[in-house]
Amino acid sequence: MDIEQLSDKIIAGDRRSLARAITLVESSRADHREQAADLIEALARKSDRQAIRIGLSGTPGVGKSTFIESFGMMLTGQGLKVAVLAVDPSSARSGGSILGDKTRMERLSRDPNAFIRPSPSQSHLGGVARRTREAVALCEAAGFDVVLIETVGVGQSETVVAEMSDLFILLLAPAGGDELQGVKRGIMEMADIILVNKADGDLKPAAMRTCADYAGALRLLRKRPQDPAEFPKAMTVSALEENGLAKAWEEMTTLTDWRRDNGHFTGRRAAQAEYWFGQEVRQGLLARLEREPVKGMMTHLGAQVASGQTTPTAAAAEILALMQQG
Amino acid sequence: MDIEQLSDKIIAGDRRSLARAITLVESSRADHREQAADLIEALARKSDRQAIRIGLSGTPGVGKSTFIESFGMMLTGQGLKVAVLAVDPSSARSGGSILGDKTRMERLSRDPNAFIRPSPSQSHLGGVARRTREAVALCEAAGFDVVLIETVGVGQSETVVAEMSDLFILLLAPAGGDELQGVKRGIMEMADIILVNKADGDLKPAAMRTCADYAGALRLLRKRPQDPAEFPKAMTVSALEENGLAKAWEEMTTLTDWRRDNGHFTGRRAAQAEYWFGQEVRQGLLARLEREPVKGMMTHLGAQVASGQTTPTAAAAEILALMQQG
Repeated sequence: MDIEQLSDKIIAGDRRSLARAITLVESSRADHREQAADLIEALARKSDRQAIRIGLSGTPGVGKSTFIESFGMMLTGQGLKVAVLAVDPSSARSGGSILGDKTRMERLSRDPNAFIRPSPSQSHLGGVARRTREAVALCEAAGFDVVLIETVGVGQSETVVAEMSDLFILLLAPAGGDELQGVKRGIMEMADIILVNKADGDLKPAAMRTCADYAGALRLLRKRPQDPAEFPKAMTVSALEENGLAKAWEEMTTLTDWRRDNGHFTGRRAAQAEYWFGQEVRQGLLARLEREPVKGMMTHLGAQVASGQTTPTAAAAEILALMQQG
Repeated sequence: MDIEQLSDKIIAGDRRSLARAITLVESSRADHREQAADLIEALARKSDRQAIRIGLSGTPGVGKSTFIESFGMMLTGQGLKVAVLAVDPSSARSGGSILGDKTRMERLSRDPNAFIRPSPSQSHLGGVARRTREAVALCEAAGFDVVLIETVGVGQSETVVAEMSDLFILLLAPAGGDELQGVKRGIMEMADIILVNKADGDLKPAAMRTCADYAGALRLLRKRPQDPAEFPKAMTVSALEENGLAKAWEEMTTLTDWRRDNGHFTGRRAAQAEYWFGQEVRQGLLARLEREPVKGMMTHLGAQVASGQTTPTAAAAEILALMQQG
């Protein structure tokens, strides 16, 4: 594969080259990993395009596909190019829920200014994270203005998405009672904007009440000195009736512009890059335990530990000494 | 330090030697770590004494100190020797809540058949875990019949305690309404016996209701094929009035005897030893990132990643290559 040529085609906006490149970064084959690293490096050298990376979390039932379709169409209607990626560590098992999303996002997937990529079918969140980060970089080099990174919020996937996004959006459905829908405090704290969807028809009053509840909850969170005082904020939208979407985008750009003007946009990306550096080192180290000869020694010593012939500490010291040597 | 002599004194039941040995295993100095490993090895060679290791989790306010005091006195009253250890990763910060416990366990701490050891003052849960496991081994060699390992349930500390216990007990207070007290499902699933404390005075009806609620919740959990059908179970106790404690102990010994007779007692300890072996290997590997020259390289490359001079993936590969060489 000619990496220089591929990178040029991606920068020129060739859609098939972009898709091919994403397949490349998704592969775990050693030679593919090397080519992927070269490609990312080439693109970083040749292009300094930056998209707004929007992380979007929403559990099934909140209308996430409908929102992405309506929101994406609104953006392309403004002349913006939109890429949609997914972080869904469970997609391997659930049999591709995101593929279903793609068929449900019928209009957006036919839009020449939109690019929808299903989640890579891997159950290991660490692997999904790196591949998605690299796919984001590819989409940026390909000239997309907005990269939407969506997750259904399984396990730690919100954190993964928030750590690769410039903005983190939480999409919710109207709640039945006056209770907050069991959204974990940690997730709330990551959100820059909470969007309560389905503010239409019979659900509109419930959506407004839910929005007010969350606005109240957000006020109780620790202030963010780097953001304007009105953020984080809660708003209602209707993806179905396409209401509130332009307003939501306006808020997103307001916050992004503010952060850019005050150096926080770059600062956040720098901190994220350092975070992923640390994560990759840790994952790379732990991955060595899965390779021979260490893996075999782990099994062998594990059996000795289980039968009481040696202690966990002594056996661990043996493995660590073995790994010290290479 | 003469390790052979120290191990003999511990086995002979010398209390000061035991305390000195626990201080040794709590130290993170390299020479102390080596002596500690030798000591554990010597004791494993010379003694095959086994205590019943009881993990006890209870948040502040459930009456944990009072329970440990009453339960411990009941056990020593039966002629049993009881050691109390604590896993509290927050004790370094909170300024020794367990030390407070010790003064509140006034009768038990004066009992010649009891031994209470405050939590080591370290905020790193991994370190606390290893040191507590080693302290348990010391107490077993010293001839204690029951080792109580208590935790306030901060973060992952319940898992740590459950993974070093033969039995895991959850201590709760009566709930106000009909709602379960926000006990996480994962914690419930670890419990062999749930004890609802404060079944005395005005709170008795609430305690009985809470107990019935939890008994119902336990029935909804997955069955454990290795245990008698009536476990896990919920019971009421009053540590204050010393009611139900002997019955609770009876249930604990019933379950333990059953597991011993069916090989599950040994099986659980074997699985735990393997678990800790894996944990120690992983922690040991990650600890290398904190040592030179890797630590300095991490800082250096981290800055380059943050400023965009290199990518997280390329920088991580450099670190991993450096560590491969030793």
